[in-house]
Amino acid sequence: MILPKKFAKSSKIPPKGFKTANEFFEYVFNDKKMIWMGQNTNHLHEKNEIMDAMVSCLQSKEYCKYPPPEGFPELKRLILQDLNLESFDVLITAGGTESLYLCISNILKPDDNIITCDPGYLIIDDFAGRFSNEVISVPIYSSENDYKLTPDLVKEHMNENTKIIVLIDPLNPLGSSYTEEEMKEFAKIATENNIYLLHDITYRDFAQNHFLAAKYAPNHSITIYSFSKVFGMAGMRIGSIIGTSKIINSVRTVLINDLGTNVISQVGAISALKSKKDWIENVTTTTRNNQKIIKEAIDEIKGVFIPVYPSSSNMLAIDLQGTGIDPKDMAKHLLEKKIFTRQGAYTSKRFGDNYLRVSFSIPEYQVEIFVDEFKKAVEFLRE
Amino acid sequence: MILPKKFAKSSKIPPKGFKTANEFFEYVFNDKKMIWMGQNTNHLHEKNEIMDAMVSCLQSKEYCKYPPPEGFPELKRLILQDLNLESFDVLITAGGTESLYLCISNILKPDDNIITCDPGYLIIDDFAGRFSNEVISVPIYSSENDYKLTPDLVKEHMNENTKIIVLIDPLNPLGSSYTEEEMKEFAKIATENNIYLLHDITYRDFAQNHFLAAKYAPNHSITIYSFSKVFGMAGMRIGSIIGTSKIINSVRTVLINDLGTNVISQVGAISALKSKKDWIENVTTTTRNNQKIIKEAIDEIKGVFIPVYPSSSNMLAIDLQGTGIDPKDMAKHLLEKKIFTRQGAYTSKRFGDNYLRVSFSIPEYQVEIFVDEFKKAVEFLRE
Repeated sequence: MILPKKFAKSSKIPPKGFKTANEFFEYVFNDKKMIWMGQNTNHLHEKNEIMDAMVSCLQSKEYCKYPPPEGFPELKRLILQDLNLESFDVLITAGGTESLYLCISNILKPDDNIITCDPGYLIIDDFAGRFSNEVISVPIYSSENDYKLTPDLVKEHMNENTKIIVLIDPLNPLGSSYTEEEMKEFAKIATENNIYLLHDITYRDFAQNHFLAAKYAPNHSITIYSFSKVFGMAGMRIGSIIGTSKIINSVRTVLINDLGTNVISQVGAISALKSKKDWIENVTTTTRNNQKIIKEAIDEIKGVFIPVYPSSSNMLAIDLQGTGIDPKDMAKHLLEKKIFTRQGAYTSKRFGDNYLRVSFSIPEYQVEIFVDEFKKAVEFLRE
Repeated sequence: MILPKKFAKSSKIPPKGFKTANEFFEYVFNDKKMIWMGQNTNHLHEKNEIMDAMVSCLQSKEYCKYPPPEGFPELKRLILQDLNLESFDVLITAGGTESLYLCISNILKPDDNIITCDPGYLIIDDFAGRFSNEVISVPIYSSENDYKLTPDLVKEHMNENTKIIVLIDPLNPLGSSYTEEEMKEFAKIATENNIYLLHDITYRDFAQNHFLAAKYAPNHSITIYSFSKVFGMAGMRIGSIIGTSKIINSVRTVLINDLGTNVISQVGAISALKSKKDWIENVTTTTRNNQKIIKEAIDEIKGVFIPVYPSSSNMLAIDLQGTGIDPKDMAKHLLEKKIFTRQGAYTSKRFGDNYLRVSFSIPEYQVEIFVDEFKKAVEFLRE
């Protein structure tokens, strides 16, 4: 159950046919015909308020100046308002990943341990391995626990040295999420045992229902916020950390970006939050419909199933075990058809051979291409 | 000589009249009439290839995708070419500050110490204090050592636990820089004692002559590169780390930005390097002329002098000791006249009361306004 301190970074392993991960990502980035289902990015922003705001800021040459180091006050206010957490404090960062690093490096001491889940977002395990004694990675790929880290699983694995419980909610890669009751249970565990809930809500806006740990355990929660997914700004690298003043003051002592986060990204983020009400329904409606198209196609294929349906996120896992197909071969095959997906190994140490992860915040016609190619691929690779 | 492990962050102390540093920076950022001489930023880019490239990338909506995690290969190649270090390796980061953090956190072990200088770029001392046993901050504000950390000073202060020598070159805030002979001496010290030269070359392109540590001690040098100054892209937050493959492979183990650096910033940086030959002369000619205007004005004022002239950078220090004026009062007074400068305390723990730092990569007419207001301010505050 305990992973080695130096946790191998799966994201650095290049897919078949590429020498380095960087070379692979350059290839997919530069191929304009590529259908992007591999990084949970959002390609659905038709309206352009966000782009317009960024272009206009660029044209004003404001980018030759440094922004305020902790972020523009307007952006900080809008994020707290978006979450109804107005009494909390917030720091702007260069993305959810930097947010996670700062919190983990701030909280964990050498004797502490941290609870994560597998499948999950493995960069967290990597960061945690740098600062803690143990990364307790709990296997959750089972219908018995609804494919998620449950309060019962946490109780079973935690011990007196547990300092952080990581809740990725909705969960990358499976799309599972928590009920209000479960969140209350986590809050109880955290407050009674003086443990922090690291609540990564990157995919929150895709969920039908979502409950913030910060509401139930304000003094033991840190919320990780990202502009990469529902806001469609992955390449702008912007996110934030939300917590009580006490928690955020502590994070301030380990800050890295002493000269602030990208000016253009912040201006885009401000515009994205202000215009959210105008485009959010289109994004969620389209992703939910896309998800249905995938589900209907998968249901027709023998030996294949979706562990969590509906997914509360813009991605889901497709279990391939019944077909005997290696997800790495499936990803490689689809890439040749110009469809970028992700083999399970990117988000799981134990179950990487079980599933393919696909995200679907893309136009419907691209999803239709995917289901066609996927059906053909299963038949082709099954042999 | 040894600073406490938890080094107070001077950048977090708000100037007189402001509640927080963030509030202060928001104020100066948003005031379009402000003359920017406070952060060494470059306001001289008239031609717009860089801006055009960024606008065009924004309009293509490429920013909804993640970039290659280590940076676009074209950008990596152009940086190495710019330095004539084609056989080295390079990582793209969200600015020189992140670059410094990654190198310091990668190299220093708890028993190690690091040599920095005072005045200097204090965020380095802060980072070093987080990962090392001692930050040996060498006082250099003296004509005896030409206002810089000399090889002799390093030999005097180093010991068997010294693992890094930080060379900010040209030096923020004084503008001093190294001769080829000095750089060879540093290289000898580094290779003979297995110490790394952390060579921060942020201001390199403003210098008449500049010598890379990497040329003389390739296996014991890490070069810190920034797009914030000569390239005029401070708000885009982009930089890099250059070293041998062995060194860069080690830094790879502590990377944070697992999903890469801002797409638009990288596209801007590519354009900036490609067009550099077209605008660099204008930038250096203007800054050198601006520096002369400041020097001539200062020479006329009693009790005021410039420790390092000519400065090899786009900033210099103005020593106010002979006037009895507190640099904090001078900065506050000038801010009221819409001129943003920096009191010495931002870049020195010991000599902060001695000088005001001003940068001059701004249009000449703004420099004229500054010298006028500065003269009047000395007369006003002297009383």
